[in-house]
Amino acid sequence: MSLVEEALALHEKNRGKIEIKSKVKVKNARDLSLAYTPGVAEPCKRIHDDPDSVYRYTSKGNMVAVVSDGTAVLGLGDIGPRAALPVMEGKAILFKEFAGIDAVPICLDTTDVNEIVQAVRYIAPSFGGINLEDIKAPKCFEIESRLKAILDIPVFHDDQHGTAIVVLAALKNALKLVDKTIAEVKIVINGAGAAGIAIAKLLLKAGAKNIVMCDKKGILSSDDDTLEGVHREMAVLTNPFRIRGNLADAIRGADVFIGVSAGGVLKGEMVKSMADRPIVFAMANPIPEIMPDEAYSAGAYIVGTGRSDFPNQINNVLAFPGVFKGALKVRAKDINEDMKLAAADAISSLISDNELRPDYIIPSVFDERVVAAVAEAVSASAIKTGAARIRW
Amino acid sequence: MSLVEEALALHEKNRGKIEIKSKVKVKNARDLSLAYTPGVAEPCKRIHDDPDSVYRYTSKGNMVAVVSDGTAVLGLGDIGPRAALPVMEGKAILFKEFAGIDAVPICLDTTDVNEIVQAVRYIAPSFGGINLEDIKAPKCFEIESRLKAILDIPVFHDDQHGTAIVVLAALKNALKLVDKTIAEVKIVINGAGAAGIAIAKLLLKAGAKNIVMCDKKGILSSDDDTLEGVHREMAVLTNPFRIRGNLADAIRGADVFIGVSAGGVLKGEMVKSMADRPIVFAMANPIPEIMPDEAYSAGAYIVGTGRSDFPNQINNVLAFPGVFKGALKVRAKDINEDMKLAAADAISSLISDNELRPDYIIPSVFDERVVAAVAEAVSASAIKTGAARIRW
Repeated sequence: MSLVEEALALHEKNRGKIEIKSKVKVKNARDLSLAYTPGVAEPCKRIHDDPDSVYRYTSKGNMVAVVSDGTAVLGLGDIGPRAALPVMEGKAILFKEFAGIDAVPICLDTTDVNEIVQAVRYIAPSFGGINLEDIKAPKCFEIESRLKAILDIPVFHDDQHGTAIVVLAALKNALKLVDKTIAEVKIVINGAGAAGIAIAKLLLKAGAKNIVMCDKKGILSSDDDTLEGVHREMAVLTNPFRIRGNLADAIRGADVFIGVSAGGVLKGEMVKSMADRPIVFAMANPIPEIMPDEAYSAGAYIVGTGRSDFPNQINNVLAFPGVFKGALKVRAKDINEDMKLAAADAISSLISDNELRPDYIIPSVFDERVVAAVAEAVSASAIKTGAARIRW
Repeated sequence: MSLVEEALALHEKNRGKIEIKSKVKVKNARDLSLAYTPGVAEPCKRIHDDPDSVYRYTSKGNMVAVVSDGTAVLGLGDIGPRAALPVMEGKAILFKEFAGIDAVPICLDTTDVNEIVQAVRYIAPSFGGINLEDIKAPKCFEIESRLKAILDIPVFHDDQHGTAIVVLAALKNALKLVDKTIAEVKIVINGAGAAGIAIAKLLLKAGAKNIVMCDKKGILSSDDDTLEGVHREMAVLTNPFRIRGNLADAIRGADVFIGVSAGGVLKGEMVKSMADRPIVFAMANPIPEIMPDEAYSAGAYIVGTGRSDFPNQINNVLAFPGVFKGALKVRAKDINEDMKLAAADAISSLISDNELRPDYIIPSVFDERVVAAVAEAVSASAIKTGAARIRW
């Protein structure tokens, strides 16, 4: 059976991938009277008297809504909320299997920014956190920032920040191997959507000084008067030398290529034009911006992709389970920039300097240390930065 | 330990009562590539091409949202969405334990009718059905009817219809025992909230001709010009002789008392004024309108309550698991009146004429035949009435 056939069979056999499980048994009248009426009235009253005790008596504190409007699903694009459901269920099982977090797919029958914000606000009482997923740029930025402002639980757009955290983790280790610092390297980010913009922002926060962003129309530059909105904002934050042109122009002399764009757009010639010992993260899925063998042939020193069948898989499953676990553990009201930097540090630090090799800059997604390390770092950072509401 | 202490301990020990369970394992890269990327893209594409296949490849078809705004929770009243969460989790585990249905508590941070309707509309793609719960009357009527009109999945306000179905089931068997027909008896319903009104409507549909409804202000009569909205509507549909007065006036000569009101409001004197072999369903919780021993002393022939510690427990857990199971099985687009009547029939028919006794008019909530019988009857009725979208 091909992967496609096997994937269809797996989804059909189980009728989806998630179910609800009761943590208590209901086999007799006594069970019923404890878990339901009349016993259930008591935790209700306690929560009514002390709202914070909702974390003590209910599943809220470990429950995350995986929210999507289905407008930017995987490489499939705007396929709608129903067709997005398999992905959101997949996300939910990753939350559970990797971090023990209970996640519920919430696919929304609206693509309007205001309505998405309202929908999430309405359902928030049931959840300890909100994972936004596969919502198109640029509206994903506004949705996330408005929700962060109105909700008292963490809101995290994984396509942005999960990706950014793992890229930063991989980059830290890659830079060690080539003996360069983040402040001195020239970094080209190809793709100025949700992921590309979040990567740029987190790298800036981590100390990068010379980032050049490209999209299909070419290099983002503050000289370019046609840029609007978040592209204008990014043009101002990046590209300090105001270079113009296309990807080939951007990459000349660059130390790092980060691709969150489309298969095959990075040519061997372009890699050859990069600086000494180039780092290439070609993360387009399923076809990378350049295939690893071609990148190595063209002189790349370190190559990462999004794929599990090559070394250095840069995959956000390394980040989001631990990030939410750490945030939920201390009931963080937010997932702030410091918490993201701490998560990246935790991931990169799992590989010691002795172990570090060009084909091992990032732990495997099945490395069981990852979630615990990320969660601990995120909890600690939440406490340190005042985002935590409790200490454990 | 008291029940209250034990209930608190149970809720605290487990941090709530529900969790998410993965139906598939994710232990290696192959698992991940089947359940998540790249394999998950295939079911997404199939659903995009054929929206109905969402029922084949996802958990939607067995997933019910238990939606509340927390305005009418148990006997506790308007305690808000967070304090309502233990009840909704309790409902979710009953769905699972009794019918294998996956139910998710969705407690809404709004009490506005339009916003509740919008919220449910937005989240509907993830769910195969909507169970409305503990929403105050009269707004619950408008919310339900608007949602039924706009959604293509069943919407069921359990406080109304679950209760009505079980009352009708109990009444059918009680009437057999006293050898009276539903068309000839005088029925007093005390309490004109969500449950009372739904009971009245379903009994009318089942053939009742002489229902008198009372609330705190007295008998609902179409002569009463002060009545508004649904109370006016009910006054027109019931009380054919336009009697006026209070509960004591209503109950004189009545064959059946149905209480969905408040503890202790039915006095022995009132039962004495009823017709021959009176039927008393005193369902206020936790204190019935009259205690069974007092009702029997006053001449009641059959007494039912909502409580598990007396015979004849009239509890909607007899209805909603099977109703949803039957509706989901045939992908019903609605739960219509015929389906409710069929559910009531199924419940009452489980007790044969030989078994029927005044203290056994309704099966136990732990009678394992109930869910299957109700589900089958509801599926069959859905097919017959055109509500079903598939036949099994």
